Amino acid sequence: MYIPTANIGESLEKGRLTIAVIGLGRIGLPTAVSFAEAGAKVIGIDINAEVVSGINVGRSRFTDEPGLNDRLRKVVTNGKLKASTRIEDMAGADAIIVAVPTPVDDRKTPDYSYIKSACENISRQFKGGSLIIIESTVGPGTVEGIIVPILEAGSGMRAGKDFGVASCPERADPGKIMRDMVNVPRIIGGVDGRSADVAAALYEKVLGTKAVKVSNPKTANAAKLMENIFRDVNIALANEFALLYEKLGIDSMEVINACATKYNFVPHYPGAGVGGPCLPSNSYYLISEGVKVGNIPYLVRFAREINDRMPDHVVTLVEEALNEVKKTVKGSRISVLGLSYKPNIKDLQLTPVERICSELKEMGASCAIFDPYCIGETAFGFRVEDDLRSAVKGADCILIGTAHDEFRKLDLGMLARLSNSPAAIVDARHVVDPRRARENGFFYRGVGRI
Amino acid sequence: MYIPTANIGESLEKGRLTIAVIGLGRIGLPTAVSFAEAGAKVIGIDINAEVVSGINVGRSRFTDEPGLNDRLRKVVTNGKLKASTRIEDMAGADAIIVAVPTPVDDRKTPDYSYIKSACENISRQFKGGSLIIIESTVGPGTVEGIIVPILEAGSGMRAGKDFGVASCPERADPGKIMRDMVNVPRIIGGVDGRSADVAAALYEKVLGTKAVKVSNPKTANAAKLMENIFRDVNIALANEFALLYEKLGIDSMEVINACATKYNFVPHYPGAGVGGPCLPSNSYYLISEGVKVGNIPYLVRFAREINDRMPDHVVTLVEEALNEVKKTVKGSRISVLGLSYKPNIKDLQLTPVERICSELKEMGASCAIFDPYCIGETAFGFRVEDDLRSAVKGADCILIGTAHDEFRKLDLGMLARLSNSPAAIVDARHVVDPRRARENGFFYRGVGRI
Repeated sequence: MYIPTANIGESLEKGRLTIAVIGLGRIGLPTAVSFAEAGAKVIGIDINAEVVSGINVGRSRFTDEPGLNDRLRKVVTNGKLKASTRIEDMAGADAIIVAVPTPVDDRKTPDYSYIKSACENISRQFKGGSLIIIESTVGPGTVEGIIVPILEAGSGMRAGKDFGVASCPERADPGKIMRDMVNVPRIIGGVDGRSADVAAALYEKVLGTKAVKVSNPKTANAAKLMENIFRDVNIALANEFALLYEKLGIDSMEVINACATKYNFVPHYPGAGVGGPCLPSNSYYLISEGVKVGNIPYLVRFAREINDRMPDHVVTLVEEALNEVKKTVKGSRISVLGLSYKPNIKDLQLTPVERICSELKEMGASCAIFDPYCIGETAFGFRVEDDLRSAVKGADCILIGTAHDEFRKLDLGMLARLSNSPAAIVDARHVVDPRRARENGFFYRGVGRI
Repeated sequence: MYIPTANIGESLEKGRLTIAVIGLGRIGLPTAVSFAEAGAKVIGIDINAEVVSGINVGRSRFTDEPGLNDRLRKVVTNGKLKASTRIEDMAGADAIIVAVPTPVDDRKTPDYSYIKSACENISRQFKGGSLIIIESTVGPGTVEGIIVPILEAGSGMRAGKDFGVASCPERADPGKIMRDMVNVPRIIGGVDGRSADVAAALYEKVLGTKAVKVSNPKTANAAKLMENIFRDVNIALANEFALLYEKLGIDSMEVINACATKYNFVPHYPGAGVGGPCLPSNSYYLISEGVKVGNIPYLVRFAREINDRMPDHVVTLVEEALNEVKKTVKGSRISVLGLSYKPNIKDLQLTPVERICSELKEMGASCAIFDPYCIGETAFGFRVEDDLRSAVKGADCILIGTAHDEFRKLDLGMLARLSNSPAAIVDARHVVDPRRARENGFFYRGVGRI
């Protein structure tokens, strides 16, 4: 039963394996492409018809993932990858990779509705002997307690006996997915040893990366959460320090860069908060499991609160900076540069810049927003300006929301000429040199800076 | 004025510079030795007469610092280093390095009495043109707000004009002081540029390490605190995860080691808590400055609480483990292996093992304590056993308190034969393999382990 591990390489190369990938987002699509390149027949399933038809003509939404589009076009052209909205098309797959989103709802409770629904659909389609691999991030115990029961109930088969289940959480960083997929080892926990062995053999063969096998799915899911929560907590710590340093008249960047010269210190930087599909929600998957066993991780919870409140602090800096040039937020034109939650990608999911723009608008500012990745689109109800100059023209305050490379070499003289002097710069991402901003006539404020 | 930076190398080599080091502890003594080796005439001052007389015959307390004793003996023999209890003996020094302890009091408030007293004494002795270097860890603003005023009041001179002041916080790790002193760059902030330049030139010349100059003493002190608080918070995070994983039936070590395969994750491990001169107190120096400006770093504060409560958790594990073998803490013999707050050094300062032993004694256990670094001594009111065998003999529970290398290769078969079967092992430092402990008949519990 299950796919034999011994000849996986040969089976792949000879096109004998069919792989279904459920969810063709930033993780699912590159995964589907990689399996197709390795020789598998890949069927990708997504509920979004527009996404599916785009993929079937070799076009992906993720133009910010270097190399993805070219590689996608090839496997679509040679017929190795097909996308579909119909779950029935996955019937007969030897392995089914689930990569659907697992967000949190408005009350910060994990919303497993997509993955539950996907697994219900799968449960009525998959064949005995196949392996179901969960890449979606879920709380430890969710695969054992929710997903396996759904798969067993729908199929009438037994996990670990009639079919395999393994967690293999994705660990790739948006904007660097193609690179991380081959470089970062995969953590794999199966409901039984064979599930883990087959999943490990597949990923090692297809991606050429190392597989780190752990005892069970919950251990793999705990590891995935822990590495993201490590980042969330350390960014919160940097933010907490930044708020204090502002009051103590100490420059955070100078301090952090000095600390970074010690071997056991790892720099994290303060800013406008965190966003994207992982950091704002992963902690809640763990907290939710903690609540169930009466052991809430308060440090993790508190870190979330700190990061979630950083947009408010940025708005306060805007108010203070405008006040210094004798202007109010109401009636001011504020140029917001950078919308994405992280640099050099196009991803507005839970970006802290959205909350900043909403609050400024609420206070009566007029926002001109600009992001080189979103030109001509609409974001947060604003039309994105066509270029930097039109965004900055007449600005009373220029606010840096994302550290895109484009903003690291801003021509401050030009910004000064275009803006409505006296004007302010508020830098939430430490890309502008405070001294140079002041030399160019701006009143400067930055998160954690003096 | 001050020592000229241009010929510092020559001045040192020709024995033209006199350096005073105030406080001959784990940091002060190696510093004094290094300056003496570089050619300076060094006078070391300490209030402890026993410490001073030991040093003057070439003997240091820090036998756990590889190389220190040999190097001390040489510079004492060649007359380059002399120790004294008399502060007057430092008169005429070109540079005065202050390395006295800065602990916190029972109410977790920084206790600057030693450094204030040292600086009052210095203020009446030092000559114009000299440079005073603060290596002791202090809160940001303490040098500017407390130390400089003391030095100016006592001397009638002006800092930054008649004499120099720089912060150059030590960044060395106990047990690796000699190595870290030459490898870890020094962060230096002066009250003026010249103070920083001279301090940087001295340390670069004497230690061969890089100097990282920052804007002022408070920035240097903030960096020193931040790098230790980073560790304290991350250890607290590991502990918080460990407590939750115990309840979820997940092994922390398996999770952490899996996470460590990602490039941006840095492993920290759960345990019995933290100790020593830095981690239990450094956070409070920052919190204390935060309180003054109405901006308390709660994440930092909360992390302290988590780490401080870990000894209680270890005691709970002992209770639970003994319960499983149908024994009570009262009347049990508990063998405590490892007393130091960290591995492979002799340092009982604020070690969490002390609280564990006190609580167990309070509950009616009889503790047999053992640490290879403290044989024949008395610790926490107990006599340290002469060897491992006598410590373990008749034990109902063996508790690992410190991950000394000696304990990483324990003969579990021998321990089983010596202990009072049925016996338990409680491992607070993940040095014992749970499976092997169970194979040898022990009931096993470990912090964060299943």
